[in-house]
Amino acid sequence: MKDFFKVTDLPDVFDLISGFPAVSAETASIADGLGRVLAQDLASDEDLPDFMRATMDGYAVRASSTFGASEGNPAYLEVAGTIAMGESPGFRIGPGQCARISTGGMLPQGADAVVMIEHTEALDEAGDQAGDQAGGEIGSTIEVYKSVAPGQHLLQAGEDIRKGETILSAGRRLRPQEIGLLAALGIEQIPVYRLPIVAILSTGDEVVPIDRSPKPGQIRDVNTYTLAGMVKEAGAVPLIFGIVPDEYEELLKACKEALEKADMVLISGGSSVGTRDFTVEVFSALPHAGILVHGISISPGKPTILARVREKPVWGLPGHVTSAMVVFTVVVLPFLCHLSGEKVRQKPRITAKMARNISSAQGRVDFIRVRLVKRENTLWAEPVLGKSGLIHTMVKAHGLVEIDRNTEGLDREARVSVIPLSTL
Amino acid sequence: MKDFFKVTDLPDVFDLISGFPAVSAETASIADGLGRVLAQDLASDEDLPDFMRATMDGYAVRASSTFGASEGNPAYLEVAGTIAMGESPGFRIGPGQCARISTGGMLPQGADAVVMIEHTEALDEAGDQAGDQAGGEIGSTIEVYKSVAPGQHLLQAGEDIRKGETILSAGRRLRPQEIGLLAALGIEQIPVYRLPIVAILSTGDEVVPIDRSPKPGQIRDVNTYTLAGMVKEAGAVPLIFGIVPDEYEELLKACKEALEKADMVLISGGSSVGTRDFTVEVFSALPHAGILVHGISISPGKPTILARVREKPVWGLPGHVTSAMVVFTVVVLPFLCHLSGEKVRQKPRITAKMARNISSAQGRVDFIRVRLVKRENTLWAEPVLGKSGLIHTMVKAHGLVEIDRNTEGLDREARVSVIPLSTL
Repeated sequence: MKDFFKVTDLPDVFDLISGFPAVSAETASIADGLGRVLAQDLASDEDLPDFMRATMDGYAVRASSTFGASEGNPAYLEVAGTIAMGESPGFRIGPGQCARISTGGMLPQGADAVVMIEHTEALDEAGDQAGDQAGGEIGSTIEVYKSVAPGQHLLQAGEDIRKGETILSAGRRLRPQEIGLLAALGIEQIPVYRLPIVAILSTGDEVVPIDRSPKPGQIRDVNTYTLAGMVKEAGAVPLIFGIVPDEYEELLKACKEALEKADMVLISGGSSVGTRDFTVEVFSALPHAGILVHGISISPGKPTILARVREKPVWGLPGHVTSAMVVFTVVVLPFLCHLSGEKVRQKPRITAKMARNISSAQGRVDFIRVRLVKRENTLWAEPVLGKSGLIHTMVKAHGLVEIDRNTEGLDREARVSVIPLSTL
Repeated sequence: MKDFFKVTDLPDVFDLISGFPAVSAETASIADGLGRVLAQDLASDEDLPDFMRATMDGYAVRASSTFGASEGNPAYLEVAGTIAMGESPGFRIGPGQCARISTGGMLPQGADAVVMIEHTEALDEAGDQAGDQAGGEIGSTIEVYKSVAPGQHLLQAGEDIRKGETILSAGRRLRPQEIGLLAALGIEQIPVYRLPIVAILSTGDEVVPIDRSPKPGQIRDVNTYTLAGMVKEAGAVPLIFGIVPDEYEELLKACKEALEKADMVLISGGSSVGTRDFTVEVFSALPHAGILVHGISISPGKPTILARVREKPVWGLPGHVTSAMVVFTVVVLPFLCHLSGEKVRQKPRITAKMARNISSAQGRVDFIRVRLVKRENTLWAEPVLGKSGLIHTMVKAHGLVEIDRNTEGLDREARVSVIPLSTL
């Protein structure tokens, strides 16, 4: 147990992601579907729209009846009817005819375009203005001042979605617009992955519950609350085990229970070498366990442990909450997205310019806390000063800038991609 | 009621935000505090940490005892004790003395620095390696190979947060790190703004509930589901009223009920001029109502209505779901953040380059849907093709690019700030 640990490079850690299966699937209502991840490809049973719809207020026409029409040489069309919203027109129009229609109305048979009301005038009513919504009684005549092309100002049946088309693929996290699309197609129940449950354990003889007054030498259990927040923001369910004493049997028992109830386990606390060794000992003693990572070449976050127990990832995170947050954001989150069934995609980063020079050690990837500040129309990433263990540095920070292992630092004005620390 | 509407410019719409008060405050537990907005400034009752803590494993020392120490000329220190985690050391150290300490341990009186264990060697045990965690028994001697400065490898009491300091200001939306800071200080109950309730009403004679098969000419109620998703993502509570018939008395009654129960009302549907006029009529008939905005010089989203009814904003959104989404993202969201008590800050945008030229009409602000695609280490914003009313264009899009009213368009490779359509 006394080996200095052999650190793993970040890309090699990410290569381990695919070794863990996603959680199982279940059925959810789209009303509860926001942020859920689709477990199967979905196809449409119908055309969307399933009828030809007007996208402007005006008159449904045969486009050919308007060809050549202009202010100086209007086309004259006979009003064959008015189309009520939500109803199928009971008539058809022929050449030289038109029908009054509102946005969203169904075109009558024979029509292949819509003339905007602004480009027409009702002739038979004295005093009416062009563009007025009145006029256009059946049998009356309108003037059309502009020609339209076939298909103009309407949606064809199936133009949005065609029957049989795959509309959304498995692994997609549902945003409001995806929920809207499903609603449009009448798909109310959807196959989604379960929400992963993430057990959170804190260790450390110095850690006390937050409602207790710490005695000299003790600190409150910050990590449980911070990590629970990060798990929630990632769309998973935190399962809080609280503080587990730094005793082999106790931690082993708690780990076993956590593995029964959760899809992933996070143990944090104990940044000392002794505690880390102890965590590795406990992980190794779990049935069907293998230590995959014992240290990562990143800073902060080097003393991170990843074990695989049966098919579940078990993490030993650094005890400093600030380091634990960086490791969660950079390393754990991609695993959690994968467990959630999400097709791994890089979360969007924010482009900014470094507000000052920053140096970095070679041979490891550094994550620098930055605050984003807009000045003169440029977004600047200002490194947050202060020792890395100070939680207020995380409160001041908006994101992290990654400095890769072969770089000695970044110059002022260097363009950087900022990893957001939260999207809230 | 037949006036062509006088459109308002976007900055003038935003000027109306401050005319609406935020919702009231309540008390919440920090366990439920993620994403909530603080209603009062919070100060700390204590120092954090409230004792001098080691940030490395090693030996607590007087820095002066190590001055001049090097590999060739080590300092020799006597081990005066070992500090247990979570306990106050019952002894003090003097010059030439040290105490074994782990990360997070409390420094004994007399110590003002920590020497990393890697820079020491325990002398009295044969065969032990430098950096080994064993060794350092009381009364034994260690060699120190590197001098430390006072304050090195430790946190001073109050170095993170000082007693009495304002730690978080009213109007701050709480991220995991803010929750962590509150936990660290033992602040379990916090004053936060209520979650705003947003009533959602759909109108339109052509709209049917999503579990019904639409007849020809009818469409399903897409807007309710989409807007509910956007409201939830904004951290507010959607209150779904469903489909209200396009009848004056019905809509007036539903609006009154919505205003009793909600902090903001969204009515969508009806993109025709007639329906818009009708909505304005209903809004005007509400007690203590004033129409503030009747049309905005943006595209899509021009036919947007904003009324103030007593102190609450009531919105008439475009009927096309895609336009309604743009208006929600660009216009409604800043109002909702303000109602939520959040100090209005611009949500982060994503920098990208336009993948192709795009033209735009002058005299209005255009919002172009774009898909973000990474190629050759550059993030490209590809305009999503297709008519603006097609919901699949929103499903394909990641964000919106704003083209301001004095610009005729954007050239390929122009640098743009993309407004994300969702952070999910």
